[in-house]
Formats: sequence, structure tokens, C-alpha cells
Amino acid sequence: MFYYIIDILGTIAFAISGVLVAMEKKLDLFGVCIIAFVTAVGGGTLRDMLIGDTPVVWMRSSDYVITILGSVVFAILFVNQLKYLRRTLFLFDTIGIGLFTMVGIEKGISADLMPVMCIFLGTITASFGGVIRDILCNEIPVIFRKEVYATACVFGGISYFLLIKLPWDGAFSYVTAILIIISIRLLAVRFKITLPNIYRNKK
Amino acid sequence: MFYYIIDILGTIAFAISGVLVAMEKKLDLFGVCIIAFVTAVGGGTLRDMLIGDTPVVWMRSSDYVITILGSVVFAILFVNQLKYLRRTLFLFDTIGIGLFTMVGIEKGISADLMPVMCIFLGTITASFGGVIRDILCNEIPVIFRKEVYATACVFGGISYFLLIKLPWDGAFSYVTAILIIISIRLLAVRFKITLPNIYRNKK
Amino acid sequence: MFYYIIDILGTIAFAISGVLVAMEKKLDLFGVCIIAFVTAVGGGTLRDMLIGDTPVVWMRSSDYVITILGSVVFAILFVNQLKYLRRTLFLFDTIGIGLFTMVGIEKGISADLMPVMCIFLGTITASFGGVIRDILCNEIPVIFRKEVYATACVFGGISYFLLIKLPWDGAFSYVTAILIIISIRLLAVRFKITLPNIYRNKK
Repeated sequence: MFYYIIDILGTIAFAISGVLVAMEKKLDLFGVCIIAFVTAVGGGTLRDMLIGDTPVVWMRSSDYVITILGSVVFAILFVNQLKYLRRTLFLFDTIGIGLFTMVGIEKGISADLMPVMCIFLGTITASFGGVIRDILCNEIPVIFRKEVYATACVFGGISYFLLIKLPWDGAFSYVTAILIIISIRLLAVRFKITLPNIYRNKK
Repeated sequence: MFYYIIDILGTIAFAISGVLVAMEKKLDLFGVCIIAFVTAVGGGTLRDMLIGDTPVVWMRSSDYVITILGSVVFAILFVNQLKYLRRTLFLFDTIGIGLFTMVGIEKGISADLMPVMCIFLGTITASFGGVIRDILCNEIPVIFRKEVYATACVFGGISYFLLIKLPWDGAFSYVTAILIIISIRLLAVRFKITLPNIYRNKK
Repeated sequence: MFYYIIDILGTIAFAISGVLVAMEKKLDLFGVCIIAFVTAVGGGTLRDMLIGDTPVVWMRSSDYVITILGSVVFAILFVNQLKYLRRTLFLFDTIGIGLFTMVGIEKGISADLMPVMCIFLGTITASFGGVIRDILCNEIPVIFRKEVYATACVFGGISYFLLIKLPWDGAFSYVTAILIIISIRLLAVRFKITLPNIYRNKK
């Protein structure tokens, strides 16, 4: 029940972020719905197609579709107020990333994949919705250019595989890993930490 | 046989629309073939990957490949004349959308999916070939910006699930739904009906 | 063992070509890794998803991930020297295309697909990593615009299906087809052979 609520909150945050990007691009109502949808479920969809767990997850329950449609209606009605909710949205989004990463990792473990592949799946689940959103909007995906985002997923995933070796209940490792992901992202944004610059000759 | 002919006509129309877009972008011969191909089969391919019905449909019969290659040759040879066929092409395209939507819905029903997911699959089948075409050509997909296109698929799909509740043969519902999709699109284009504007401050 | 070495060399060449493109776009470290990764495994991933051979190949062995990460580190450290290795890289890349095409064709044959579909799968394996790389970098894929690239794969694939009808060992056909692909590409680049121009009114 707890996980379910966080999952839904994460889906809402991702869907709303999709609506905001799509409206900036002046897409029509259908375009806005599609972008909201792919932002929210794109990562999980790619993950399910990669491991062959089909039909992909959002096809098996109407919860996602209903949640996303509701989010789109809400976002369009209150688009002007959403500016003031930026912090709340960012928090939802960050919580969503934490949870989505762990959902992907769990899926990888169920499919008997190596830990490194599980971490990949977790990162894909959390970040590729945004990548597909940016491709559809004809932008270079934002996570390739700035912000510690996928990096947080990768570190959280590594922590999880270290933590489950400890003599405690697996659920603690799970929750701790989510908290690590959330903390890394919050701290990175708060203190403007970015990935090391790999370019010697800057313009 | 009737369905087969419409399917092939739809594939031809989609392939030719791909050739025209690719030639506008000055792609080479290989690029033109690829764009024609993904426009014609991209929607069905994504649908099959989402539900795990693999190998995807165009790999199981050479009909699609032959039809598309023939269309490409035809379109390149008669590119100047195609301008005058614009209406005929538009009609093929619209018929193709109607049929492709119902093919996708049928696939969803066979996979025991909920009606709403079937309608999604139908819409994906009919419209994502064009979306992939536009992404490969580095454009924001045209169906996100104008024209009642996917909307027609969605309404047709809803009609189908209402119609099959009537005490008549399923084939009537099938054909009626196709006609509804075709009619909505023709009427929308004829009377320049578009989706409601969701932007308050227009530029 | 021989094939394995060539496979790894091809993966290295593809990964490095991804790094170079990503650095030109000023992506951050994570973006560079992702682009290197999709360039190297994107074609095989799409192939595996199309035929339903999941989990996709790079998830089953850590060799690919390790090879690609090593290539990224190498490419970033020696980016200035790589200019002088352009010829060597081009050779690796071309060898990689030859091998990747045949890997894809073999996969298609194992899946009981028609020869034409096997050739499609081979071409996808060899060329779609680069296509996905260009889409993520917001460019029209380079292979749609210039260079005999996919064409070499297609001719090599056709040769293979003709050669295996000869009364000799299948391995000879396999190697000969790889050499044909490599030769076509090398000759085409050497003598600046391109696909026939399909545009009558050039600007």
C-alpha cells in the first residue's frame, strides 16, 4: 500500500513534468497527453521490452492510464498555479526516481540478471521516460546534459547490492537504497554538484 | 480478401507518404527506403513489441516488404505526378488508418487486454509509423501538432466497444468502426475541425 | 575465439565512435557513456526486441558493458590522439559492420525467418546503433544521408544466401560474406562511390 501510493505519486509527478514540457512546445491536446504518458511510463515500457516481460506493465492495469489522464487534466487546469508548486513537484519527481529505480532493479533480479544489469534496468526505468519525452519534443535529452540524475540511480543501485549482503531484512536495504537515491539528488541540486567536466577546451 | 486489399492499400499509402517526407529532407536512396518502411510498419512493430507478439508481423510474410519496395519505386518514378494524386493518397491514408486501428484493437482483444488498452494499441498501430518517421527526420511529430488523427482512432475504438454490445454480427461492428474513423477524419479535414486550444495566451 | 575478438573490436570501435559524437555535442559524462553504449549495442538490442529474443544480448554477459566502459575511459583520456587513429578506427568500424551483419543474419536463420528478413535483421544489427546515436543527439541519422553503409550489409547478406547454396563448408560462406561487406565499404569510401542521386532538381 505504501509502495503503491509512492508509485502513483511518482507517476503523477512524471506525467505533470511531461505536460509542462509539451505545453512549452505548443503541442495540441493529443500531443500533450502522449508526452505525459510516455514520460510517466516510457522507462518501464523500455525495461519490459528489453527483458521480454510483455504485455508491458501499464497494459495490465488501468491504474496508470487513469492516473495519467487525471494528472493531465489537473495540469492543464492549474498550469499557472503549478509554477508555485515547483518544489513539491520536484520532490515528487525525486521520490518517483528513487522508487522507479528500485522497481526496475527488482524486476532484473526476478529475471535472474547480473547485478550490473539490474542497476541498468533500474536506471532505465527511472530515466528513460524523460529521454523519450525529449526525443519526441526534438530536444537532446536533458539528462545527458545536466543534473545528477541517472548518477543517483546508479549509486543507489550499487548501494542496494552492497546493503543486501548485510545481516538484516531485505526491506531495509530496499528503503535505504531509495533514500540514498533521493538524498543524492536533493544534495546535488541543493549544492549545485555536477558531473566532472570532461572537456579541456571550453568555449 | 477484402481486408487484405485494404491492408495493402493502406501500406502503400503510408509508404508513399514516407517517401515524400524523406525526399523533402534530401535523404539518399537507402534513407528513403527506410523512412518508407518505418512509416508503413512502425506502428504495428511497436504494437507487437509492447504485447510481446514476436517476431513482429512484417517479418512473418514478405508481402509487406514487397509492397513497400514497389511503392518506393513507384513514388520515386512518379514523384512529380504524385502532387496531382494528393486526394487519392489522402483517401488511401485515411482508409489505412481506419483498418490499422481495428487490426490493433483485434490484437489487443486476442491478448486479453482491457478495452482501453486495446484502443491504445489500435491508435499506436495507426499513428506511430508517422511518429517514428518524423523522429527519424528530426521533426516534432506532426500528429502532436495538428489534425484530428489519433483522435479519430480513439473515437472509432470507443464506438467499436459500444457497438459489439449490440445484438448483431461482430463483423458489422468492425466495419462500422472503420467507417466512423474514416468519417471523423474526412469531416475534420473538410471542415477544419481541430482539437480545442489549451493555451490561454497565444502568441 | 576469432569471432569473439572481432566482436569485441567492433564493439570498441562503435563505442568510441559514440564517444566522439557525444563529445562534439558537449554532453556530460553520463550522456557520453549512454551514447557510447547505444551506439555499440543499439542495433543488436532492436534486433532482439523485434524477434523476441529476450533478455536482449548485452544483458546476458557482462563482456559488453565492461568493453564499452573501458572504451569510454580510453576515448576520453586519449581524445586528442584519436584524430591520428581515424584510419584504424574506420577499419575496426568496418570489420564490426561485417561481423555484426552476419551475427544478425545467423539470428534470423535460427528464428526460421525468410532470407530477406534475415538480411534486414543483419542490416539492423550493424546500422541501427548509429541511427539511435544520431536520434539521441538530435541529428538526422548520418547513414540516411551519405556513405554506402547499409547497402554494404544488404549486398553482403544477399551474397551469403547465394554462397551457402555452393557445395562447400558453411563457414566459408560466412567469412566470404563478411569480407564482401568489408570490401564494398572500403572500396566505396576509397573511390567515393555513393548511392545514385534520386533528385532531379538539385538546389
